[in-house]
Amino acid sequence: MICKGLSVRKLRQITVIGLGLLGSSITLAVSRKIPGTKVAGYSHRASTRAKARKLKVADKVYDSLAESVAEADIVILATPIGVFEEIFEEIAQLLPAGCIVTDVGSTKVMPYRWAAKAFGRDIHYVGSHPIAGSEQRGLEFGRADLFNKALCILTTVKNTNPAALKVLRQFWTKLGCVVEETTPAEHDRILGNISHLPHVTAASLVNATNEKHLKFAGPGFGDTSRIASSAANIWADIFITNSANICRAIDREVKEMLRLKTAINRRDKKQIERLLERARDKRGRLAGREQNNRNSE
Amino acid sequence: MICKGLSVRKLRQITVIGLGLLGSSITLAVSRKIPGTKVAGYSHRASTRAKARKLKVADKVYDSLAESVAEADIVILATPIGVFEEIFEEIAQLLPAGCIVTDVGSTKVMPYRWAAKAFGRDIHYVGSHPIAGSEQRGLEFGRADLFNKALCILTTVKNTNPAALKVLRQFWTKLGCVVEETTPAEHDRILGNISHLPHVTAASLVNATNEKHLKFAGPGFGDTSRIASSAANIWADIFITNSANICRAIDREVKEMLRLKTAINRRDKKQIERLLERARDKRGRLAGREQNNRNSE
Repeated sequence: MICKGLSVRKLRQITVIGLGLLGSSITLAVSRKIPGTKVAGYSHRASTRAKARKLKVADKVYDSLAESVAEADIVILATPIGVFEEIFEEIAQLLPAGCIVTDVGSTKVMPYRWAAKAFGRDIHYVGSHPIAGSEQRGLEFGRADLFNKALCILTTVKNTNPAALKVLRQFWTKLGCVVEETTPAEHDRILGNISHLPHVTAASLVNATNEKHLKFAGPGFGDTSRIASSAANIWADIFITNSANICRAIDREVKEMLRLKTAINRRDKKQIERLLERARDKRGRLAGREQNNRNSE
Repeated sequence: MICKGLSVRKLRQITVIGLGLLGSSITLAVSRKIPGTKVAGYSHRASTRAKARKLKVADKVYDSLAESVAEADIVILATPIGVFEEIFEEIAQLLPAGCIVTDVGSTKVMPYRWAAKAFGRDIHYVGSHPIAGSEQRGLEFGRADLFNKALCILTTVKNTNPAALKVLRQFWTKLGCVVEETTPAEHDRILGNISHLPHVTAASLVNATNEKHLKFAGPGFGDTSRIASSAANIWADIFITNSANICRAIDREVKEMLRLKTAINRRDKKQIERLLERARDKRGRLAGREQNNRNSE
């Protein structure tokens, strides 16, 4: 298996499939931070490929998915999750033996199932999740420094190839990430709460708002609703592939909203303050991390 | 009545009661933008008065509430709403005839009731609400440019004194605000939705979050939860003085969350996308306003 002796220093080629904000940020970051590695890109859209060539986000942008992955040491999927299964099946027979496959999707349990079905023993799938990005989309927003100080979760299962895991750990670290490991199930449970729930929240807040009142919105509404501007198709895929965890998280938040409502309805100042202070204290513990993240926002 | 011939050019003194982020931003803004007007300040806390003197946020910081308002053309309350009633009653007999009283509280119906009870015909109360600020608190965060391009809502009732209204309109405009007029009831209904609801939302999101998962939080969680760091006592007062509107707004948002939950539970991609796109489109209409607000964030 190729990946046994592989290290980030010896990477000959990485291929990124999907050249949006995240995909192009990876290609740009690899060009800058892992010099000597060929950066290949593929998008199923001709217009995106043309833009990628014009903006020179990769050493080579391929018109054919098959050609783009034929000589890859690492293949990274940066498309919406909804097409992972199809792409895994399509590339399974095209990858060189020992190839590492990863992705940057926001859910991990389902990709592992699809990978297990599609790939034989000589392909090493390890799901990655660099927690970076923004509500913007498109490769024109790609930035080589997007991953600076961002957390990257690498997910592992019983039969994860240790060499592939090591290479990916080095890879994301080189790109600027702080790497943590979890199982796919843990990942989806945690992210369902800390990442997917805020998207449900922001969208629901906006949908509960009378359009005529938007002109009265201040910075508070602006921030709380910012991620309601995210791409609907990407988030629909995330919600669908993590539905049980997200539904449970929604129930927890609804319960908290109704608890606060009860206190407000009773004009129970003590209890309102208790609930608000609990939130304020807990969120205060984010402050340090936020400073770190500012660069990657 | 003094205020009949009064205009911002002829303001001899304004007095700000409460010297937190908003109060000190007003005193700093008046010093810079309405030169020639004496800026007086009062805080019930000796430590705040000392800090205010040290940071020179006002021409004079008084130790006595009575003295601070004795020669004021405009008195502005910038304290938590919960003490408005008490302050109105305390200053009612101390104000010069014709004095204009306003406040920067986030709810308006209750302050009008308290003002009607406390003040005679020679005192002119008009509630203001400049939509600016941040989750930070304390006069060290005061900024003369806080109100640049911020919306300021002036609330009017049947017997609002037109001269007082005109002076306040000029006053907030001088400070950089764009002024809109509504009734107090309209104000509270609109703000209950566009401003108070996001605070319930952010706090509930944080309270629904497992503390151990905070280290996995990305910029999305950070923004959606930012205003959960606001001062609990200030927001408890706002919630209590606008409880009916806020409870209705909570019900609307909960309904939207459960609608999205149903679609996620059914893995109904079309419906999830429809709900997310509705939110995305609606929020898109904020974009222009956000640019304007950036200075005051």
